[in-house]
Amino acid sequence: MCSVYIVGVGPGDQGLVSIRALEVIRGADVLVYDRLIPQDLLKLAKPGAELIFAGKELGHHVMEQEEINELLVSRAREGKTVARLHGGDPFLFGRGFEECLAVTRNGVKCIVVPGISSAIAAPERFLIPVVLRGVASSAAIVTGTEDPGKDRRFVDFRGLAGRVDTIVILMGRHRMREIAKELIEGGLDPSTPVAAISKAFMDGERIVFTTLGEVSGDGLESPVVFVIGNVVSAARSLLDRQ
Amino acid sequence: MCSVYIVGVGPGDQGLVSIRALEVIRGADVLVYDRLIPQDLLKLAKPGAELIFAGKELGHHVMEQEEINELLVSRAREGKTVARLHGGDPFLFGRGFEECLAVTRNGVKCIVVPGISSAIAAPERFLIPVVLRGVASSAAIVTGTEDPGKDRRFVDFRGLAGRVDTIVILMGRHRMREIAKELIEGGLDPSTPVAAISKAFMDGERIVFTTLGEVSGDGLESPVVFVIGNVVSAARSLLDRQ
Repeated sequence: MCSVYIVGVGPGDQGLVSIRALEVIRGADVLVYDRLIPQDLLKLAKPGAELIFAGKELGHHVMEQEEINELLVSRAREGKTVARLHGGDPFLFGRGFEECLAVTRNGVKCIVVPGISSAIAAPERFLIPVVLRGVASSAAIVTGTEDPGKDRRFVDFRGLAGRVDTIVILMGRHRMREIAKELIEGGLDPSTPVAAISKAFMDGERIVFTTLGEVSGDGLESPVVFVIGNVVSAARSLLDRQ
Repeated sequence: MCSVYIVGVGPGDQGLVSIRALEVIRGADVLVYDRLIPQDLLKLAKPGAELIFAGKELGHHVMEQEEINELLVSRAREGKTVARLHGGDPFLFGRGFEECLAVTRNGVKCIVVPGISSAIAAPERFLIPVVLRGVASSAAIVTGTEDPGKDRRFVDFRGLAGRVDTIVILMGRHRMREIAKELIEGGLDPSTPVAAISKAFMDGERIVFTTLGEVSGDGLESPVVFVIGNVVSAARSLLDRQ
């Protein structure tokens, strides 16, 4: 039976790719990849492997999702081993599930390889845990950019405010002022600490400490992970106090 | 400068360990490990490496956290390269941050290697995404077992109900009936779909589909990840309809 591997390759550092993901990459006849993968990974492809860039950026798709799905199915039906590489984890805002669904609907087997998500790893890169004993026992991971399609469904940031200890926002750079406003309207204090982590595990990675009242995505290079909550100041002050 | 590596080794399958984690394991003089790591990993330790089991289970600690911290510091001060291995990710309910803090407070450098967390990977193992376009755009990751110490702070499950689309509960097996009751009191429908995933990526892994009104941790072997929300039925029906 033909197979498509839906593979998470982690937040951007080749060292954070799993053994299984490497095996799949080395064995694949076709590699379909996003912009945010460690680019040196492609050098591990076997000679003659077909490398296809399906990169997606906000508002600028090289390939539509439908095209990607069709590509995965058609190459697999030719008997090729296909690996679809996603930055981070393929099922956490990565459309890996939709791809899995598309290929299985077409009689092709889907095998998922999880990856390290930047939702947790990006804050960790700067020694910020999203949960911390005595400070935060729950963390919400949400998207800041939602699909503008028919099945539009926005995160209720007002309702979320105060219901979880930590809020982690992915893909929120463009809407961050608006999101912060909604969280404040929902009851969060404008002084709530925020860390904005840009390009974690990539060249030019950096962290900016701010507050909910002041936060903005301006001047930050994507991808940006925003962490909102007392873990930010707690972790920081604990570590600074050494 | 002496170093302690705080390393996540993923949800239990050796293939899901990162390249970086393997390098650290191979190079370490001392390996301090938990119960829930892929046990074959220890075979990769270099000859003569000291292997120390610090396994923790609910209500049954082989070593207290203080002892573990002291061990990491003392071995590092002897000039040894110390690797502290955590199942999953070390900063997601793993006390990796506390260890990092303890060692840095004692003048030892802490280097964190993120891992794949079962919070996302365990549902993914059974093709359930914790977020899904049109179904769920937010997921909360919470602990079901909180520290009974002085800085006790329980998750407000009543308040959380309905504020995020998906709730993922780790370490909740023993309190799951009580948690479900609180979520229902908070407004969630007893018919809300639940998946209980036991021992993902390990021998004997299995998934049980149930509802919030019926869920219980009874008969499930730990570790168990509970996923609560419409993603469970949506993913399931989409995949079944093939």
